[in-house]
Amino acid sequence: MEVKVQLLGFGNVGRAVARVLIEKKAFFKRRYGLTFRVVSISDRSGTVWLPEGIDLREALLIKENFGKLSAWTNDYEVYNFSPREAVREMDADLVVDVTNDKNAWEWHLEALREGKGIITSNKPPLAFHYGELIGEAEHSDLPYLFEATVMAGTPVIGILRENLLGDTVKRIRAVLNATTTFILSRMEQGVDFERALRQAQELGIAERDPSGDILGIDAGYKATILHCVAFGPITYDEIVVRGITEVTAGEVERALVRGKRIRLVATVEEGNVRVSPEEVSGPLAVSSNENVAVIETDLLGELVIKGAGAGLKETASGVVSDMVKAALGLTGA
Amino acid sequence: MEVKVQLLGFGNVGRAVARVLIEKKAFFKRRYGLTFRVVSISDRSGTVWLPEGIDLREALLIKENFGKLSAWTNDYEVYNFSPREAVREMDADLVVDVTNDKNAWEWHLEALREGKGIITSNKPPLAFHYGELIGEAEHSDLPYLFEATVMAGTPVIGILRENLLGDTVKRIRAVLNATTTFILSRMEQGVDFERALRQAQELGIAERDPSGDILGIDAGYKATILHCVAFGPITYDEIVVRGITEVTAGEVERALVRGKRIRLVATVEEGNVRVSPEEVSGPLAVSSNENVAVIETDLLGELVIKGAGAGLKETASGVVSDMVKAALGLTGA
Repeated sequence: MEVKVQLLGFGNVGRAVARVLIEKKAFFKRRYGLTFRVVSISDRSGTVWLPEGIDLREALLIKENFGKLSAWTNDYEVYNFSPREAVREMDADLVVDVTNDKNAWEWHLEALREGKGIITSNKPPLAFHYGELIGEAEHSDLPYLFEATVMAGTPVIGILRENLLGDTVKRIRAVLNATTTFILSRMEQGVDFERALRQAQELGIAERDPSGDILGIDAGYKATILHCVAFGPITYDEIVVRGITEVTAGEVERALVRGKRIRLVATVEEGNVRVSPEEVSGPLAVSSNENVAVIETDLLGELVIKGAGAGLKETASGVVSDMVKAALGLTGA
Repeated sequence: MEVKVQLLGFGNVGRAVARVLIEKKAFFKRRYGLTFRVVSISDRSGTVWLPEGIDLREALLIKENFGKLSAWTNDYEVYNFSPREAVREMDADLVVDVTNDKNAWEWHLEALREGKGIITSNKPPLAFHYGELIGEAEHSDLPYLFEATVMAGTPVIGILRENLLGDTVKRIRAVLNATTTFILSRMEQGVDFERALRQAQELGIAERDPSGDILGIDAGYKATILHCVAFGPITYDEIVVRGITEVTAGEVERALVRGKRIRLVATVEEGNVRVSPEEVSGPLAVSSNENVAVIETDLLGELVIKGAGAGLKETASGVVSDMVKAALGLTGA
């Protein structure tokens, strides 16, 4: 079965997804009988559209050599569609959103109304409009999947949405942002906050504008999404977020003396989400780019899931798993 | 939607499942719109059958007071069906196997041919007949679910079967048997093997005949099932199993000195499954009734899932989650 895909966003994650689709093409065919045909790719410069399917190798070459898809003028038409126009005008089964577009919820709704399933790694639509989006997806009987929004491809969303179906979740405690873990780990080694942040930026772990990470916004979005899945809709505006900018060298050191570490911890309970730096030990004391979630339920007790929370291949893992899941659901397999 | 269930097996796990069905009846209705109607319960003494639905509270009372369902002679007919007859004669949507019947694969096949989905916590059918059973389930387009066979309700099967769909699993390393962990932990405290085993038996952690645990058979069954799910069919006869009976106090102590622990570790690679005591540190060094699996894949790297690997509620969690999953699949929701 062939599945027609629109790829919105061709930054690091979008390109990682394209690479997986190229490298594992035979695997998808053999294992699931699936072929993904990417009919459009959009970046900020424009949209390349080819109903017969775009050559992903070439798309990667163009993007990596010229920095933008609109440079691709020899074989393909480049259109000036907005995302909204793109999801409306073109024929496709699935829309894959790997942008950072905060207003993407609008064209997610549009895509669902056009009969297209959504796969997204983009957090704000869910952190602000979960109820509407899931409602529309259920109403339209279409997949709306977002594994990669939390803990990259580590399947915490899959566990909460499709497993533990007899359990009632009581609480989730989680470390959901790898950049803050990096900075706090460096501080444990005696590096001050400013320098640790600069190192993170030099290594490409933190962005040039690091506020999303260090103010706790990224972890807050993710914690909001976990609440939506485990307990029902809530929005980012309703939660409490404190970042790591006020964590002092002294606090980090005093924690270490007690055999503990400071991490940016999300605590998610019904109707109550909080993100703040806390002294932790045990499973929450992660290092490097690991994320972890400790899920407490009535029957199972405590479940720990730990894995990559960032990285390109690791995020593509979540996006592509959702693509397969959606495609198998569409085929009824 | 109402789902008709046959419960085969009314030992500790079967009764724990019944208790969850009683206690969370309103939850299943509210959350999933599901009502489970248990139309038959079988134990070794006989089968109670009531198409209108059995009163589970009463069934528990009878079993707990008289030790067998056949004592229940006032309101219900008790039949002398074999499991095979039970799944053939009665009308139901799902068959829940919480027996230890090694030959259950025969009546699993029979049930599938009769159009009934299977939920099982019973390992041997899968460890010896996975290919046949899954083949028949796919052929009949019926659910065949077995979360509770490995790591109780901790959803390692769900992760491997329904998530990570873009990843290729390279290797799984896991501690899958809590009884051996208990014994080895006691040995770390200076208790000798025989005494540690006796303590485990007194606490109800090990069975009167402990060979299934200490010889590695239970872990071997589970490792076989993990291979089937991650890499495709294999049988228990094809794997290598060494139990913990030859682990000496000296080995345990030397490991401790190196900051390590000896655990019964399953290593699962394509075409190659091995269970044996090994010196471990890090995530595999679990304690108490925790089980853990470390799943290594091409995209995600290393994923750790850790949680209850034994216990009644904890096992019922897996069985009941599968019941909901199967029911939602049957309704197409």
